[in-house]
Amino acid sequence: MSAGRVRKEIDGALLDFVDRQRPGVLAISDQLAPMLTALDELLAGGKRLRPAFCYWGWRAAGGEDIEAARGIAAAAASLELLQASALIHDDVMDASDTRRGQPSVHRRFEAAHREQGWRGGAAPFGEGAAILLGDLCLAWSAEMFEVSGLDPESLRRGRRVFDLMRTEVICGQYLDMLEGARGAGTVDDALTVVEYKSAKYTIERPLHMGAELAGGGPQVVDALRAYGRPLGIAFQLRDDVLGVFGDPTETGKPAGDDLREGKRTVLVAFTLERATPAQAELVESRLGDPALDAEGVAQLRTIIEDTGALAACEEMIERYTAQARSALQVAPIAAEARSALAELTVAATARRV
Amino acid sequence: MSAGRVRKEIDGALLDFVDRQRPGVLAISDQLAPMLTALDELLAGGKRLRPAFCYWGWRAAGGEDIEAARGIAAAAASLELLQASALIHDDVMDASDTRRGQPSVHRRFEAAHREQGWRGGAAPFGEGAAILLGDLCLAWSAEMFEVSGLDPESLRRGRRVFDLMRTEVICGQYLDMLEGARGAGTVDDALTVVEYKSAKYTIERPLHMGAELAGGGPQVVDALRAYGRPLGIAFQLRDDVLGVFGDPTETGKPAGDDLREGKRTVLVAFTLERATPAQAELVESRLGDPALDAEGVAQLRTIIEDTGALAACEEMIERYTAQARSALQVAPIAAEARSALAELTVAATARRV
Repeated sequence: MSAGRVRKEIDGALLDFVDRQRPGVLAISDQLAPMLTALDELLAGGKRLRPAFCYWGWRAAGGEDIEAARGIAAAAASLELLQASALIHDDVMDASDTRRGQPSVHRRFEAAHREQGWRGGAAPFGEGAAILLGDLCLAWSAEMFEVSGLDPESLRRGRRVFDLMRTEVICGQYLDMLEGARGAGTVDDALTVVEYKSAKYTIERPLHMGAELAGGGPQVVDALRAYGRPLGIAFQLRDDVLGVFGDPTETGKPAGDDLREGKRTVLVAFTLERATPAQAELVESRLGDPALDAEGVAQLRTIIEDTGALAACEEMIERYTAQARSALQVAPIAAEARSALAELTVAATARRV
Repeated sequence: MSAGRVRKEIDGALLDFVDRQRPGVLAISDQLAPMLTALDELLAGGKRLRPAFCYWGWRAAGGEDIEAARGIAAAAASLELLQASALIHDDVMDASDTRRGQPSVHRRFEAAHREQGWRGGAAPFGEGAAILLGDLCLAWSAEMFEVSGLDPESLRRGRRVFDLMRTEVICGQYLDMLEGARGAGTVDDALTVVEYKSAKYTIERPLHMGAELAGGGPQVVDALRAYGRPLGIAFQLRDDVLGVFGDPTETGKPAGDDLREGKRTVLVAFTLERATPAQAELVESRLGDPALDAEGVAQLRTIIEDTGALAACEEMIERYTAQARSALQVAPIAAEARSALAELTVAATARRV
């Protein structure tokens, strides 16, 4: 099946790149082995959504098949290293214990410090190691893109989108953190965060970058972006719903972690817009409480459902997904790309992870 | 004077780049203005050592004057954004309060959080903002290099060194942190950290990158590296001495900050090698104590002097600097580059900052 074949090529390119870096890193010092192990284990998980959208943006704009075209698998897979960087740093900022069902990178190094009985604080050591591993992934993402093997003119076109995308996601993450700190944001404020932190970054820009790499004209680029933008919003809204109501065995995160972290999602903004004063007071007092237990999570979930916020969010996901589907239907692209993107539409907005 | 003219061009390229990014960032949200302000204020300081070495590596390998050659000022200045990223993240990892005599980026955002009375912890907010601003600088450093205006073939040659340099400095910083946690490292262990965290990154690789950008052959590259490597070690040893004995009004850091952070420098390794059991016990018990006061710093300084570690370190600086000077004398490069590098040799190893 096509999706499996694409995934295999992207995984192959990613692992090849990391394997080519490995001897150079270990030649600096074999003490760096745990950094590589932490990266290997993080990269073993993940859905490769961004590389997949990049590749299908490329195909949609007339690029050759992944097995025929030199370089596109690596250029697309470089987005997975950017994502690894974002996840590692995000987990430090959110003090998350887990990622993809495993200990987060900073917790992993914190545990190593504790086991070895080293000097100084174990937590700052873990955070420091995670900051550096995230930096390494960010640097390697750029390197992997450049050495992908695509021709210089393609890279020049794609790089403009790659550059934009990095700036957008970093700025979006700052706004996300700022909204959490300021509280009291509106649904529109939450949607701005969604747009930059996630929607553009996960779907619109990878598609856009792929299309530019292939030399697609403005018509196909605009059509892909018209599909990618609403789908990206729907993707993040689904992620927000899963962050509160998702099954931990599927999300790889403890139940209600987003509530504990005080994320000001669209779901939370809807809840506060519709809450009675008593409900609002309860939400404001419990949201962002790191000690929030299962009962507290259940209480917040009830309010989110009772206010109609969950239904409103589901309705919004439905609406944006439908908008994406309509844009895809009329996009001037080949049938194979359209059908692959239709599959990705389902994967990006599924109620299960 | 030549150094002033080079500095002016490099500063101009750096500020131009940041100014070109500004409207795009503010178009995402005007709430991002404090991120730009923090970057502006950090970039207002600094000696631009890495861009200077990169430029003189370029000239040494036959590159044109900075006012004539399109792109070299920007390519060289992109290293200052890499350095900004390293400093911002380093200050988070070391929990440093100050940088270049001003509050560090994370402390700046921590203070803003406190002033605004926002939700959640002020310290994690500050750290999160600093992690993201460091990420932005790392991404922008790569972008600035690519859009510098140098021709694709020059960039391809220089990029290999740029890539190596990023991996080396990030790995070196991990080893630095690891040595601090493990303690009990030898002088050789400390020298490995010096080599990757600082010596290659500050001097050898910038020279190497400049020479590659200019298309310099192996003879000039080897000669520059033979000069840059020992000078880079001398530079970091001088920095270590200043970190313990330097004047805070000149270093921009509180006196003895390196001791408080528990850095396992060559100076510390020399001290422990030569200390009596009683002296070693005292050093081990006070090094890395965040509460170390002026008296404690004075006590450690006395031991570092009494054991002869300071003199050994000064002797080592002298030896490496002399080695660099000899290599420079015989390097097959133009007189102007030789004389500019001789000036930079003094600047990089001066007893005053």
